[in-house]
Amino acid sequence: MNAIYVHGYDPRESTRLEDQAGTLVDLLHSDTSYPAGSVVLEAGCGVGAQTVTLAQRSPGARFVSIDLSPESLAEARRRIDAAGLTNVQFRQGDLFALPFDAESFDHVFVCFVLEHLARPVEALTVLAGLLRPGGTITVIEGDHGSTFFHPDSGAAHEAIQSLVELQRAAGGNALVGRQLYPLLIEAGLEDVRVSPRMVYVDGSKPDLVDGFTKKTFTAMIEGVRESALAAGIIAPDVFDAGIRDLYRTAEADGVFCYTFFKGVGRKRAR
Amino acid sequence: MNAIYVHGYDPRESTRLEDQAGTLVDLLHSDTSYPAGSVVLEAGCGVGAQTVTLAQRSPGARFVSIDLSPESLAEARRRIDAAGLTNVQFRQGDLFALPFDAESFDHVFVCFVLEHLARPVEALTVLAGLLRPGGTITVIEGDHGSTFFHPDSGAAHEAIQSLVELQRAAGGNALVGRQLYPLLIEAGLEDVRVSPRMVYVDGSKPDLVDGFTKKTFTAMIEGVRESALAAGIIAPDVFDAGIRDLYRTAEADGVFCYTFFKGVGRKRAR
Repeated sequence: MNAIYVHGYDPRESTRLEDQAGTLVDLLHSDTSYPAGSVVLEAGCGVGAQTVTLAQRSPGARFVSIDLSPESLAEARRRIDAAGLTNVQFRQGDLFALPFDAESFDHVFVCFVLEHLARPVEALTVLAGLLRPGGTITVIEGDHGSTFFHPDSGAAHEAIQSLVELQRAAGGNALVGRQLYPLLIEAGLEDVRVSPRMVYVDGSKPDLVDGFTKKTFTAMIEGVRESALAAGIIAPDVFDAGIRDLYRTAEADGVFCYTFFKGVGRKRAR
Repeated sequence: MNAIYVHGYDPRESTRLEDQAGTLVDLLHSDTSYPAGSVVLEAGCGVGAQTVTLAQRSPGARFVSIDLSPESLAEARRRIDAAGLTNVQFRQGDLFALPFDAESFDHVFVCFVLEHLARPVEALTVLAGLLRPGGTITVIEGDHGSTFFHPDSGAAHEAIQSLVELQRAAGGNALVGRQLYPLLIEAGLEDVRVSPRMVYVDGSKPDLVDGFTKKTFTAMIEGVRESALAAGIIAPDVFDAGIRDLYRTAEADGVFCYTFFKGVGRKRAR
């Protein structure tokens, strides 16, 4: 993962990703489980927000979870230990230069990683190389351009767009979710199936209003305020109005929609 | 339905709505069926695109389908007859002045109607008045602001926005889908549940590429070209580039996403 992360590292960010993982576990992960005995590579585990869920849902599988950041790995290890899980092994490493033999994994799992990469097809191709013939690769990504809400607000869209532009400037792509199908196809995977996972939040869902609209999405946008202003992408008053309008969508008559995408492809069997 | 329709009347439009209904039947209607013996008002049946599905899925229910347009009603009647259905009665009438007694229906169904109305809450309130206590109202609407695609295109978004603005100028709201929850609440309904129904189209779904991306959505935008240019909302070259870019999303590596919303509310039991 030779990428500059726009978000993902500071302690407040860890809390945000934990909230996000807690709220979204079923939506994103309920249809992922690996058979007993299989060996699964989790590429880019970060602070382990998804690792705990993965390992709990597939107790008979063995996970090898890698990340570039030693600090993130230490936090991920702490979480796995706190959850009493013993089927995860952590390794520090760069996704483009992993110390594994070709075809040494039954499955690969990649979540919230491609958005940070300038060469997502190359990353998928590298990961497919580590997969045994017939094995699967599962990819989950968000798409900030999928966001819409009520009341609508041009300022809120501009604030979101400032994160999209920061991520682009850092070599990433905050709109990568919608592209999973062509990316997996281009990387040579077969039987590719992609499905959208919309987080739909209205006043009847107070847990999602708090856990997703406010503490995950709006907090994420709020978190790039200084970078966006420093980069001259957006005026402070517009950014602040946008944040206010995003919080406005969390009121009783507000609605907030965001879509994640999950794709699964299979490596050609021999 | 005291509204000027932006689309819905010419013969090509009827074909488009029929294509749309055929492709989307399961996504939108699979969870709607009414018990035998119940009497259901379909408010704004148009050319009957949904009426056939409704009546087929609830063969023991009796439907009263109304529309303002005698031409649309004639077409709807033709379709119901062609399908061999006998449980639908058609009446011409204005949604705001229907010739029915209060509380004379067990259920109400409204599909692709609120988008054309300047006073959606008033419409829902009128319809709720026709509902017996404990009866349900089901509302289905699209939301043009939910549209996103790959490759992304500013011109395509502008072409879509020109339809949104025409519909607004005609007193309607092409972004009404996301508002179903607050609208149903404001109209006094209870136990309101709204769910998004995303049409996700990629190269693995040629029927949807053809039936939805091209023949439903892009054809709909294409259909307002003259009105949008006459209204000076958009430049011809931008509009035409937008249409080209929408067709581009229908190629093998393209992706297209659009979200409908379905809401159900219940009238307070006595």
